[in-house]
Amino acid sequence: MDASGAYNRALGEPLADPRTPSPRDAVSTPPYRRAVVVGVGLIGGSVALALREKRLAERVVGVVRAADRVKRVTDCGVVDEATADLAAACTGADLVVVTTPVGSIAEHVVAAARHAAAEALITDAGSTKAGVVADVAGAWPADSEAHFVGAHPLAGDHRSGPEAARGDLFDGATTLVTPTEATPAEALARARRFWEAIGSKVIEQTPAEHDRLVALASHVPHLAASAVAATTPDEALPLVATGWADTTRVAAGSPELWREIVLANSGPVAEGARRLAAELTAYAVALDAADGDALLQMLEEGRRRRDALGS
Amino acid sequence: MDASGAYNRALGEPLADPRTPSPRDAVSTPPYRRAVVVGVGLIGGSVALALREKRLAERVVGVVRAADRVKRVTDCGVVDEATADLAAACTGADLVVVTTPVGSIAEHVVAAARHAAAEALITDAGSTKAGVVADVAGAWPADSEAHFVGAHPLAGDHRSGPEAARGDLFDGATTLVTPTEATPAEALARARRFWEAIGSKVIEQTPAEHDRLVALASHVPHLAASAVAATTPDEALPLVATGWADTTRVAAGSPELWREIVLANSGPVAEGARRLAAELTAYAVALDAADGDALLQMLEEGRRRRDALGS
Repeated sequence: MDASGAYNRALGEPLADPRTPSPRDAVSTPPYRRAVVVGVGLIGGSVALALREKRLAERVVGVVRAADRVKRVTDCGVVDEATADLAAACTGADLVVVTTPVGSIAEHVVAAARHAAAEALITDAGSTKAGVVADVAGAWPADSEAHFVGAHPLAGDHRSGPEAARGDLFDGATTLVTPTEATPAEALARARRFWEAIGSKVIEQTPAEHDRLVALASHVPHLAASAVAATTPDEALPLVATGWADTTRVAAGSPELWREIVLANSGPVAEGARRLAAELTAYAVALDAADGDALLQMLEEGRRRRDALGS
Repeated sequence: MDASGAYNRALGEPLADPRTPSPRDAVSTPPYRRAVVVGVGLIGGSVALALREKRLAERVVGVVRAADRVKRVTDCGVVDEATADLAAACTGADLVVVTTPVGSIAEHVVAAARHAAAEALITDAGSTKAGVVADVAGAWPADSEAHFVGAHPLAGDHRSGPEAARGDLFDGATTLVTPTEATPAEALARARRFWEAIGSKVIEQTPAEHDRLVALASHVPHLAASAVAATTPDEALPLVATGWADTTRVAAGSPELWREIVLANSGPVAEGARRLAAELTAYAVALDAADGDALLQMLEEGRRRRDALGS
């Protein structure tokens, strides 16, 4: 028996690494008994579908924010059952994945911790982590034996809602998992296994490092796109071509959603926005001085980083 | 006979609006006898192909920068003949289209004006206009009876070179035509007809207005894309998703080419870059203050302008 098997046995629960099923019972016992997805939109619906399609849970329950959404989610066929009662849904659950907007994640995680099974894994899909992790730690129920490990799957779609959910949404995607010094190694290992089991590659980061890097990789580029669009006067719009269209594309995203995202990560985003403003001012100074060498150096640095990604 | 026919007859030349051929000779006489394209890359090659495919010229001659490029251009089949001798190519030409890099356009226009036929139309495809137009006016040969009207076709492709040329590159594209107070109405009308004949819609702007608007629609977004890429640290690259990829896409463009473009339009680009830096600083200030109303207003303005374009 390998190390992870010994670990699962020690915890007294039927969890097994889904990639290495035991020879005796390879197919019939999914690693999770009762998996709960709190928030059933694109991400939550896709987690639920992945759990079902990959046969990772005996039962997948979706928690919706109001009873009148139960039918919509059930009709989509992404969960085995749906309810607006988070406490009832989480009772006896050994896996809870919270995919609600970032401002309400901590509250839902703590509520889940009150009701989930002993040693349950609770994780989330919020796009910022330091605030969520700190809020969860500050409100954690003293008697809960569950474990929370923050996560951020880098997956999405231009569509939203459970109708857009896909069981393969996480296949090949990267999930950032953000343990703290207080996270037990076993809980971290289980969080890694869950996000890998639904198809993603896992990278570990501290919550603060995650927030700094995601600000630069996603939040500041969003503000840049929005600022470019906002500073283009109407009379210039007939002149725009594919360059402007690409550069501003994400500015079409929901202002309400993005306000919440950048407010939840305000320190790193403000720092990145100022760094970007300084780079643009440096361009203006070089243009004023007709400093071709400085311009070339900045443009080459931009291309070097862009080429590091590929198309 | 309509007004444009009267105008062509008065000029004593065989030009006719290609969209309204005369009833007597609708097919057999193309509007241009000898059309010269100076610079045979993607744009020049596509102008040449459009002239040939739409039967707008009796002969299309390409001028290349060195004799060893004659074979390459001839092999592409975009011109009837190619030469490195601009003077010989332009002798007797009634249409010259200069598509060389913006820093050498004025020199080529003036050289063409020395040799082209009386009343020849000379136009260009440079992405900035005030400098080109001023340089051409300052060096115009006193004895030339040709006319220059600056232009900027908003068309391109991610590929470059005459091998990428397409006769339909300008179909449905917008060409900005930039007359000055010194441009005769007849010359302007002929420039419009040429750019419309190869498929584009024409918008008239003064050179200064053109440069200000194209700075905001194209040059500043390029610097923004480059600055976002340059300020993304290597350790953030594993976190980037389609938003970053879209926002930075144009930063992969040639640094040497873009240095030349922004230097040729340095005043308006520097002003636009400073305006964009100020918008990003305003984002940082609103984030520091957790001012959700200000953030929402800025994000909504960005979305409004982005949505004005469509996808």
